[in-house]
Amino acid sequence: MIRVLVWNEFQHEKTKDAVKAIYPNGIHNTIADFLRCDDIEVRTATLDDENCGITKEILDETDVIIWWGHMAHKKVPDEVAALVRDAVNSGMGAIFLHSAHHSKPFKLLMGTPCSLTWRESSDSELVWVTDPSHPITQGIDRAIELPHEETYGEPFSIPNPDKVLFIGGYSGGEVFRSGCLFQRGNGQIFYFQPGHESFPTYHIPEVQTVIRNAVRFLAPRYRADILCPHVRKWGDPQGYVR
Amino acid sequence: MIRVLVWNEFQHEKTKDAVKAIYPNGIHNTIADFLRCDDIEVRTATLDDENCGITKEILDETDVIIWWGHMAHKKVPDEVAALVRDAVNSGMGAIFLHSAHHSKPFKLLMGTPCSLTWRESSDSELVWVTDPSHPITQGIDRAIELPHEETYGEPFSIPNPDKVLFIGGYSGGEVFRSGCLFQRGNGQIFYFQPGHESFPTYHIPEVQTVIRNAVRFLAPRYRADILCPHVRKWGDPQGYVR
Amino acid sequence: MIRVLVWNEFQHEKTKDAVKAIYPNGIHNTIADFLRCDDIEVRTATLDDENCGITKEILDETDVIIWWGHMAHKKVPDEVAALVRDAVNSGMGAIFLHSAHHSKPFKLLMGTPCSLTWRESSDSELVWVTDPSHPITQGIDRAIELPHEETYGEPFSIPNPDKVLFIGGYSGGEVFRSGCLFQRGNGQIFYFQPGHESFPTYHIPEVQTVIRNAVRFLAPRYRADILCPHVRKWGDPQGYVR
Amino acid sequence: MIRVLVWNEFQHEKTKDAVKAIYPNGIHNTIADFLRCDDIEVRTATLDDENCGITKEILDETDVIIWWGHMAHKKVPDEVAALVRDAVNSGMGAIFLHSAHHSKPFKLLMGTPCSLTWRESSDSELVWVTDPSHPITQGIDRAIELPHEETYGEPFSIPNPDKVLFIGGYSGGEVFRSGCLFQRGNGQIFYFQPGHESFPTYHIPEVQTVIRNAVRFLAPRYRADILCPHVRKWGDPQGYVR
Repeated sequence: MIRVLVWNEFQHEKTKDAVKAIYPNGIHNTIADFLRCDDIEVRTATLDDENCGITKEILDETDVIIWWGHMAHKKVPDEVAALVRDAVNSGMGAIFLHSAHHSKPFKLLMGTPCSLTWRESSDSELVWVTDPSHPITQGIDRAIELPHEETYGEPFSIPNPDKVLFIGGYSGGEVFRSGCLFQRGNGQIFYFQPGHESFPTYHIPEVQTVIRNAVRFLAPRYRADILCPHVRKWGDPQGYVR
Repeated sequence: MIRVLVWNEFQHEKTKDAVKAIYPNGIHNTIADFLRCDDIEVRTATLDDENCGITKEILDETDVIIWWGHMAHKKVPDEVAALVRDAVNSGMGAIFLHSAHHSKPFKLLMGTPCSLTWRESSDSELVWVTDPSHPITQGIDRAIELPHEETYGEPFSIPNPDKVLFIGGYSGGEVFRSGCLFQRGNGQIFYFQPGHESFPTYHIPEVQTVIRNAVRFLAPRYRADILCPHVRKWGDPQGYVR
Repeated sequence: MIRVLVWNEFQHEKTKDAVKAIYPNGIHNTIADFLRCDDIEVRTATLDDENCGITKEILDETDVIIWWGHMAHKKVPDEVAALVRDAVNSGMGAIFLHSAHHSKPFKLLMGTPCSLTWRESSDSELVWVTDPSHPITQGIDRAIELPHEETYGEPFSIPNPDKVLFIGGYSGGEVFRSGCLFQRGNGQIFYFQPGHESFPTYHIPEVQTVIRNAVRFLAPRYRADILCPHVRKWGDPQGYVR
Repeated sequence: MIRVLVWNEFQHEKTKDAVKAIYPNGIHNTIADFLRCDDIEVRTATLDDENCGITKEILDETDVIIWWGHMAHKKVPDEVAALVRDAVNSGMGAIFLHSAHHSKPFKLLMGTPCSLTWRESSDSELVWVTDPSHPITQGIDRAIELPHEETYGEPFSIPNPDKVLFIGGYSGGEVFRSGCLFQRGNGQIFYFQPGHESFPTYHIPEVQTVIRNAVRFLAPRYRADILCPHVRKWGDPQGYVR
C-alpha cells in the first residue's frame, strides 16, 4: 500500500460560499476520495490541526505528501516546513498543487522565490503533454482541457527541472511549465499547476489521473536518514580507505 | 570578429512568389544583412552551391553556423551533415531555425526524430521568455509578438534540453519549446522556432535581437579535434598514470 | 515478462584463449545466464549472425537490448545501428556496456564522438554510487570493487547525462562517469562502464545486480512509432485546433 | 570592473598555528590577493565583522561572492544566510569553496542536506576536467594535482547540477564531484571542492586559475529584484492579456 497524506490549508472552503459549493468537504477530501483504491491509502491534515497535522512520526509513515495552500502560506510554522523538506530529502515523495508553488516547503526545497505571473481570469487552459512516454502522463491524450483555470505565466523562478512533463497554454495567451519533476536528496517532487479553488478542477477525470499516476511514480523506492543520506550499510562513518 | 556562416536551402524563395516578395534575396541574405556589425562578419552558403557550400576548411573558419531548411532536407548529402555535426562537436556554435528541426545535421546531433505537431494556419504567436537572466534573452521584454507564424506543437521529440529559454503559445492553442540550448562535445547549439518562409518573421527586430544574442553566446570558447576532443597538451595519448 | 536481447560482437572469445577461458560461451551467454529469472526472458544475437541477428521485427519484440562490442564496431552495418536507434526512440530500453561507448548505435543516439581516455593496465577500480536512492543502485553498497578493469578516464565526450548514477575511480588515478542515464524519444538508455573482456567482470555479483536492476528500470512503459512518437489517440495528424 | 566579496569565517587561522603558517592573513586575504587584477576588484568580510560584514547594500554592490567556512557555520545568523540566498536569486554570482558545502547559504540555495563522506587523511588528489570547453576550465590541463587534500566522497547530496566541470579522485580511493554549476533564479553558483585549511591549496596556481575563471563566468549578466524576478519593463503587474 502506498501511504498518502493530503495536506490542505482548508481556508477558502470555510469562508467563501462559491468555493464551498465546489469542495463541500474541502479540497483535501475531494483528492483523498478519488485517490483511495486498492494500492493507495489516504490520510488528510489541515492548517487548523495541531501543528498543522504534521509531525516527524506522521511523515515517517507517509510515502507521498500532497500539498495545497494559497492564502495562508505564512501561517505554516517554519518548523513544519522544515519537517516536510527533511522528509522529502530522506525519500518521501511530494506533490505540490497549484498555488503551493509559494508554499514554504516547496520554496525551501527549491531555494528560489518560485514566483510567477498570474491573473484571475475566465481563461480556459490546455495542459499539453511534453513527454508521452512518462509514467505520469499515461492515460492522458495530447492535452487536458480545463474550461476555466487561474492564469499562470512564465517566467516561473524555479531551478531547471529534471524533467518538464506538461506545459500549459491559456486562452489569454500565457504559457507555463505546468508539470515539473525535481529530485531532492532521496525524494522525488512533482509540481502540478491545475487547481484554483474557484473552479472544479479536481473533479476532472484527467486531472485525477495525473495525480494518481504521480502518487505511484513518487512513492519512495529508498528511504534513509536525512542527516546521513549516504550512509547505508558501510562500516566506517569516517569513510572508506582503499 | 565572430565568423558566421548562414546556410539556407534557398528553394521556396526561387519558386514561390509570395516567399520571394518577403525575402527577395533569400532568407540567408536577410539574416546576413541584419547580423553584420562591428564584431560579426558573415558569409552565406546554399543547397545549390557545390557541396552545399560546405567543406571542412570552411567550417574550420566558422565560429557559428546558422541553418535554415524545409522542403529539401533530403537533398543535403549525408557527408555534409556529418561535417556539420563534427564541427559542432569540435566547438563550432550552431543555430537551427524553424523547420531546421528536421534537418539532417540537427537530427544527427540530437539522436532523436525531432518530430513535432504542426499546422499551417493564420495563428499569431507569443514567444515567452522563461529565463530573463540569460544572455540570449537580453533586450527582449516578456514575450515576442509574432502576428503570424506556422503553428508548432508539443511533444517535440528532442533530448531534454540543457536549458529552455523560450516557450511559444499560439492563438490556436498549441504550445512549443521555442528556444532550446544543447551542448554537444565542445559546441553549443540553439534551436529557435520562429521563421516560417510565408511570413516576414526575420524582419521583426526582436527576432533579430535573439539571433544576434545567440551568435555572441555560441561563439566558441575552445576548439579541438573531434576525434580526440579530450587531448589538450597532455603528453601520453594512452592516458595518465599517477 | 521483460524481453531482453543481449547482443555481443563475440570476436575476442573466439580468437583469444585468455578471453575464452573467462567467457567460454561468449560474454552474451554469461549475461543471459545470470539475467534469466521469473520476470526476465533472454535471447542473444551476435555480429556473425545474419544481419547481426537484428531486424525490426526482433526489436519490436524486445523490451531492453544489451550491447557489448569492442574491436568490430565498424563491421556493424549502418542500417543495423539505425534500427537500434529507432527502436530506442520508439521506447525500447538500451544498456551499453564498457567499450560499447564507441559502438555505432550509442554514437547515433548521443550525437557526440563518445571518446574517452583509456589505458590497458592492472588497475583496480572502485565504482562509487552517486545516487543511493535510484532503482538501479539498489542492493549495492557504497561502491563496487573490481580487482582489475581497463582504465577509462575523463573527459568522456557525451551529452550531459540526465543522471549520473556511478563514478569510477581507478588505482592509477583516473576517474570516469561509469553509470549514466539518458532519455532519447520514448526510450531510456543506461551506459555502464565495467566489463573489459580480459577480466571476469560479468561474473561479479554486484555487476550482475546493476545490470538486472537496469533491465527492470529501462523496460519500456510506453511504445510508439518512431516517425510519429507524439501521435497517440489524437484524431488529426495535422494537429489540434482549439 | 567585477566586484568580488570574499567571505571567510576566519577562525582556524586565529586558533591553529599550523593554519596560520599557511594563511597568515586569513584565507580571505590570500584569495583576495591573487584575484585582484585589471578587471577584478575585491573586498573581504569575516564572521567576526558586524553582521558578518554582510548587508543588503553590500550585496547589491557585489557581482560575485566567494564563501569559505568550516567550523562555525552555525554562528552565521539565519538572516545573513537569507540575504545571500536572495542576492543570488536576484543575479549575484556565488562561489562556495570546500567545506562551504555545509554553509547555511549553500544549503538554503540547494534545498538538500549537502552531506558527503569525508576523511582527514594524507591523500593526494587529482581534480579532473570533465568539460574542457567550459570557460571555467580554461588554462587547466587534464587534471589539477593536489599533493594533499582532505578526502571528500560520494554520495554528495546536492540536486542534479546543471553541469559537472570537475571530478576529483583521491589516492585513498574516493571520488567526488569537485566542480559543480547550478543556476538559482538569475544567479549562477559554482561549488569547488579544493581548499582544506591545513594545506596550502589556495597557493597552487591552477586552483587560483579556476577561481579567477569562475569569477569572470559568474559575474552577473542581469540583475533584478528577488521578489519579482520576472517583472522587467512589462506594464501590468497582474500579467498580460492578449
